[in-house]
Amino acid sequence: MSKLKLNIVIIGAGNVAWHLAKELQKKEQKIIQVYNRSVEPAISLSQHLNCDFTTRIEDINENADLYILTVKDSVIEEVSELIKIKNKLIVHTSGAVEQNVIKHKRRGVFYPLQTFSKEKKLNFKHIPFCIEASTSEDYSTLMRLATLLSPMVYNIDSNQRKVLHVAAVFACNFTNYMYMISDEILSDKNIPLDILYPLIKETATKISKHKPKDVQTGPAVRKDQSVIEDHLNYLKKGINYDIYKLLSKNIIDKNKDEL
Amino acid sequence: MSKLKLNIVIIGAGNVAWHLAKELQKKEQKIIQVYNRSVEPAISLSQHLNCDFTTRIEDINENADLYILTVKDSVIEEVSELIKIKNKLIVHTSGAVEQNVIKHKRRGVFYPLQTFSKEKKLNFKHIPFCIEASTSEDYSTLMRLATLLSPMVYNIDSNQRKVLHVAAVFACNFTNYMYMISDEILSDKNIPLDILYPLIKETATKISKHKPKDVQTGPAVRKDQSVIEDHLNYLKKGINYDIYKLLSKNIIDKNKDEL
Repeated sequence: MSKLKLNIVIIGAGNVAWHLAKELQKKEQKIIQVYNRSVEPAISLSQHLNCDFTTRIEDINENADLYILTVKDSVIEEVSELIKIKNKLIVHTSGAVEQNVIKHKRRGVFYPLQTFSKEKKLNFKHIPFCIEASTSEDYSTLMRLATLLSPMVYNIDSNQRKVLHVAAVFACNFTNYMYMISDEILSDKNIPLDILYPLIKETATKISKHKPKDVQTGPAVRKDQSVIEDHLNYLKKGINYDIYKLLSKNIIDKNKDEL
Repeated sequence: MSKLKLNIVIIGAGNVAWHLAKELQKKEQKIIQVYNRSVEPAISLSQHLNCDFTTRIEDINENADLYILTVKDSVIEEVSELIKIKNKLIVHTSGAVEQNVIKHKRRGVFYPLQTFSKEKKLNFKHIPFCIEASTSEDYSTLMRLATLLSPMVYNIDSNQRKVLHVAAVFACNFTNYMYMISDEILSDKNIPLDILYPLIKETATKISKHKPKDVQTGPAVRKDQSVIEDHLNYLKKGINYDIYKLLSKNIIDKNKDEL
């Protein structure tokens, strides 16, 4: 198979655009233009990439192979409708938006499953890509492109991507909230959260090799009611009390189901 | 200060005993005896350490500087009462048990804050030690001993250790439960949890440099009610629905408090 050499237009100039476009250049793909509604981010990114830019959607270069929308979720549909170019592959990079909000025949999703901040360098090799496209030929192009960036490329349709988003809320957002409660509880007694960091890291590392169900530890899974009562008394009534109670009850109940 | 050279008796022959005793030997401390009620684990550990053993509590060597109880939480008090040796430092290694269940004048706690499994090698340099003792001289001895094993040594009294335990339930046990729910949600659609692993790792890594409160992300902290509703509809009524609802509500409420 010949080497992949795409001409690409980047739509939007935010964090995803900055990281993704630069990485695509490193992998010898050609960014021929940046479009952004406001001029300063457009200039700044186009200088970073050493390519053309425009702030007029009707001036978007028609000769690209691929148009990557990196704009906010809420305007993907609107922006894609304003692009009048025909018969070209247009993709978005969002985890939460369905493929078919893009009103073009050749459409797809090229979703890097990671949080992007401008300051923080990311190693693309550790970013899973979720790929979807309306035609098998375009799917195969996106697959080849993603594989240049990362060994973790997944075929994920819009329904699965929604499920992934729900699961990520538990595994990431709610997990961070557990860390936050932990920090609150410790701060009360002037204990730094650092002391728990090795255990937090071990907890996260363990599940790369074991199913979370098989490595659940703590008073609830041991059904140690005296420790649970003791902890609830310590927390007193309140937000964290309610969470401790509900999660412990559910861990106990789920283990009952297994017996 | 002269080099620390302690004669130590290990009480119990479980996971903590195996890991800790071997590491103490590596740091040139002398394990002079292993006591364990049942004979096979006693023999097995004493061979591993190349030292004496006994299964009779009245035969415990009286000439040690330090007696380390690694027995189960529920029998620490009972075993410590059966040790009739006078005026020696006796410590336990538990996170959940108060120092004063040891009915000896010279008592303390030497608590490695990590989960131990026999199979898995642990790097002691990454294990925080929580130290407590009834006299300042013994405290200083335990501090020196812990410092041989790890750079992370904390002065934690029994009240603080209890708080630490509550906080660890959130940061570790409940976090693992979030991973478990996530795995359940993905399994339903035949998506492997692996796909979320880079995000899980990033979430855990981030808090080594930032306060969890400052890096909370997701629909709840953005007050994105339409995504929250969408996710709740997906989960339908049930255990995971209740958890999603409670945690999202609390994240939203806590952010209101800040305004």
